[in-house]
Amino acid sequence: MKTILVIGAGLSASTLIKYLLENSEIHEWKIRVGDYSKETAERKIKGHKNGEAFKFDIFNETQRDEEIKKSDIVVSMLPASMHYMVAERCIKHKKNMVTASYVSKEINAMADDIEKNGIIILNEIGVDPGIDHMSAMQIIDRIKEQGGIITAFRSYTGGLISPRYDNNPWNYKFTWNPRNVVVAGQGPAAQIIVNGKYKYIPYHKLFTRVSRTEVLNYGEFEVYPNRDSLKYRKSYGLENIPTMIRGTMRRPGFSKAWNAFVQLGATDDSYTLDNSEHMSYREFINTFLKYVPDETVEEKICKYLGIEEDSGVMYKLRWLGVFKDTKIGLKEATPAQILQKILEEKWKFTEEDRDMIVMQHIFEYTLNNQSYEIVSSMVYEGEDSINTAMSATVGLPVGIAVKMILTGKITEKGVQIPVNKSIYEPVLEELKKYKVEFIEEKKEIN
Amino acid sequence: MKTILVIGAGLSASTLIKYLLENSEIHEWKIRVGDYSKETAERKIKGHKNGEAFKFDIFNETQRDEEIKKSDIVVSMLPASMHYMVAERCIKHKKNMVTASYVSKEINAMADDIEKNGIIILNEIGVDPGIDHMSAMQIIDRIKEQGGIITAFRSYTGGLISPRYDNNPWNYKFTWNPRNVVVAGQGPAAQIIVNGKYKYIPYHKLFTRVSRTEVLNYGEFEVYPNRDSLKYRKSYGLENIPTMIRGTMRRPGFSKAWNAFVQLGATDDSYTLDNSEHMSYREFINTFLKYVPDETVEEKICKYLGIEEDSGVMYKLRWLGVFKDTKIGLKEATPAQILQKILEEKWKFTEEDRDMIVMQHIFEYTLNNQSYEIVSSMVYEGEDSINTAMSATVGLPVGIAVKMILTGKITEKGVQIPVNKSIYEPVLEELKKYKVEFIEEKKEIN
Repeated sequence: MKTILVIGAGLSASTLIKYLLENSEIHEWKIRVGDYSKETAERKIKGHKNGEAFKFDIFNETQRDEEIKKSDIVVSMLPASMHYMVAERCIKHKKNMVTASYVSKEINAMADDIEKNGIIILNEIGVDPGIDHMSAMQIIDRIKEQGGIITAFRSYTGGLISPRYDNNPWNYKFTWNPRNVVVAGQGPAAQIIVNGKYKYIPYHKLFTRVSRTEVLNYGEFEVYPNRDSLKYRKSYGLENIPTMIRGTMRRPGFSKAWNAFVQLGATDDSYTLDNSEHMSYREFINTFLKYVPDETVEEKICKYLGIEEDSGVMYKLRWLGVFKDTKIGLKEATPAQILQKILEEKWKFTEEDRDMIVMQHIFEYTLNNQSYEIVSSMVYEGEDSINTAMSATVGLPVGIAVKMILTGKITEKGVQIPVNKSIYEPVLEELKKYKVEFIEEKKEIN
Repeated sequence: MKTILVIGAGLSASTLIKYLLENSEIHEWKIRVGDYSKETAERKIKGHKNGEAFKFDIFNETQRDEEIKKSDIVVSMLPASMHYMVAERCIKHKKNMVTASYVSKEINAMADDIEKNGIIILNEIGVDPGIDHMSAMQIIDRIKEQGGIITAFRSYTGGLISPRYDNNPWNYKFTWNPRNVVVAGQGPAAQIIVNGKYKYIPYHKLFTRVSRTEVLNYGEFEVYPNRDSLKYRKSYGLENIPTMIRGTMRRPGFSKAWNAFVQLGATDDSYTLDNSEHMSYREFINTFLKYVPDETVEEKICKYLGIEEDSGVMYKLRWLGVFKDTKIGLKEATPAQILQKILEEKWKFTEEDRDMIVMQHIFEYTLNNQSYEIVSSMVYEGEDSINTAMSATVGLPVGIAVKMILTGKITEKGVQIPVNKSIYEPVLEELKKYKVEFIEEKKEIN
């Protein structure tokens, strides 16, 4: 019997653990799930005979060492910044490891050691990053094999609310970590390349640089650029591609309204407001606007943003209640924390709600003097509020990869992301069985 | 004979060293000037018999210890981040110390030790911070002694070009560290308080929130808020003041044009452009603008900023040459570094130029049911390109403070900034002899 150690049993691990347990009988696996809260781990295992829940503290060195030592493979579902502590023990005990997170600096620094010890640390095999890499590479490799030259690659992903439950004016709910949504895009400028020209977009302009796209029969979406559009050119073998953009999808109108908060400075997470606890939502907004005694906050914000009171943006803001006298009640909070609190009340993802992952790749390429466009789209709706689309699209590829490493289907060593055919082909093939499937539309272009 | 150790003999130390040497005979001082470049130190001493220049390396622990041990007082003109290394030795050898820099976290952490050892570390006694504290406190204390209640305090400082040499469309030259000018205002939002309301201004809106003021017969200036308007409320005894703003002065029109760079993202110092060396100035600007094949860079930037081609902003930008095909020639430079290079060519402060420090405090207060306004203004023009206004207004108060500590006129101990009458009165009095003098205008207001 082989032992799979899963560290971290939070929301994103639900489908993963379910998949591993379902596959445990035929493959003779024992699934040991460690979480800081034993109850959380237990809730995921639901008494399955091949599962075992236990309290796991990543900062307990002895436990970390012992648990990794006695397992056959380790899945880290911890926050990305903690993976290196797991990786370091995996190297020592020569255990393979899988994560859904971006390759961290610390993991990269261990790359030689990882390869030398004959193990694989497979990262970025969730949804984004993960399914995006695999589904894009499948098309990129195919076009190249045919002799085509790829001239443009646009890749968009969104974690959104499923259409039936999409019932607020922002067309958005928190189907994932709210904090990440509030601070999304902050940091160095977003980088894209368009017809060979590098373009840098500072944060305060990011939500004005949106493009639009349609996805299957799901209607229209808008896309704002991710900060890291260019970093995968090398891994994808697209070093000289003239146009490449990676972006985040929202429903039309979201970005224009979100930009109101960006323009105010209300997404800033770098300083705290002394008197935040006793401030009202209305005072919070007013704190970013000029002192003009004879104008209302609503009038001032319209002037500030150059919009009308009857605009869609103002409707969205009013709907959030930001002009109400509700007390914030958070001590020494940053603007971002206050905004998150306001949003969490209105964008709450309830037990009745279902989420949806939308992904779309748009390729332009030339083959035999003809230009083509391939649009490859995937929409996956969540099963319920536990087995969400996010949890499924993260957990299934991780689970499949674990299985393929244990069964010897994946034999690569070292620090990997799933851009090789030997990894992405079988994973994508099995994902289809779970309805994680791309639909391709191809046309000639002039 | 007493020994004064001056560490750092850069531009800002010129007038300081001159002052100390001039006062050295009557007070029997030896002025030892240590700099990483012995030649720099020698140039400042000019063979004066009471001066001694030597190579000083702050990272040489033995030298640092020995030099501080054998001196009677230490002046650190090093970058602010290095003062703590000097302070730590001053504590050990019980030597007083003076700097023109902001009190650093490290110095604050040593406060108990400093007081216990019976020494003073006097900081923020340059121009801004320094003369601003002293000249403001003199008026604040006077108003309070009369029984007045201060309701508003605005304090503005600018390091500018003297009117006779003010001959470019930006009305600005680099009279001080260019890097600090390019990144000015970045970081957490600027904080001000207006009629009891806190106002937070994010960086990307900072240069649109300007106010205007007139200074003596020097005409009109504009002011953008400093990040730290509120932090001196406590030191100034103005904890409950309804309105307080500290700001930086420029000539009218500067901020609107500078805002063009801020809006583009061209002042960002957080990432590098890979191909910066071979890029042209024009390409640099274009990199922040959308890809639109049939529009010129000039047309695109006008749309982006919502301005006309014949506007003052576009004139200032064209004058800088940012639309020219000049090669940047800097490897892997950040946008801020590239912008600094472009500006340094055009905003160069030459040997023929003279600079100017402008400072203005505006107080509103009530006394016996009548409201008053006091405007206190100071303009100081530089003597030449070495003894600049900046060097004089930094160096003179530092030099005077050194003298007053050595002669027992300043007896305070611990970490100090010059907000106490016992310090500011004699320093301001002596500064008058050097024409660093404020002119007060007072009027009743309704």
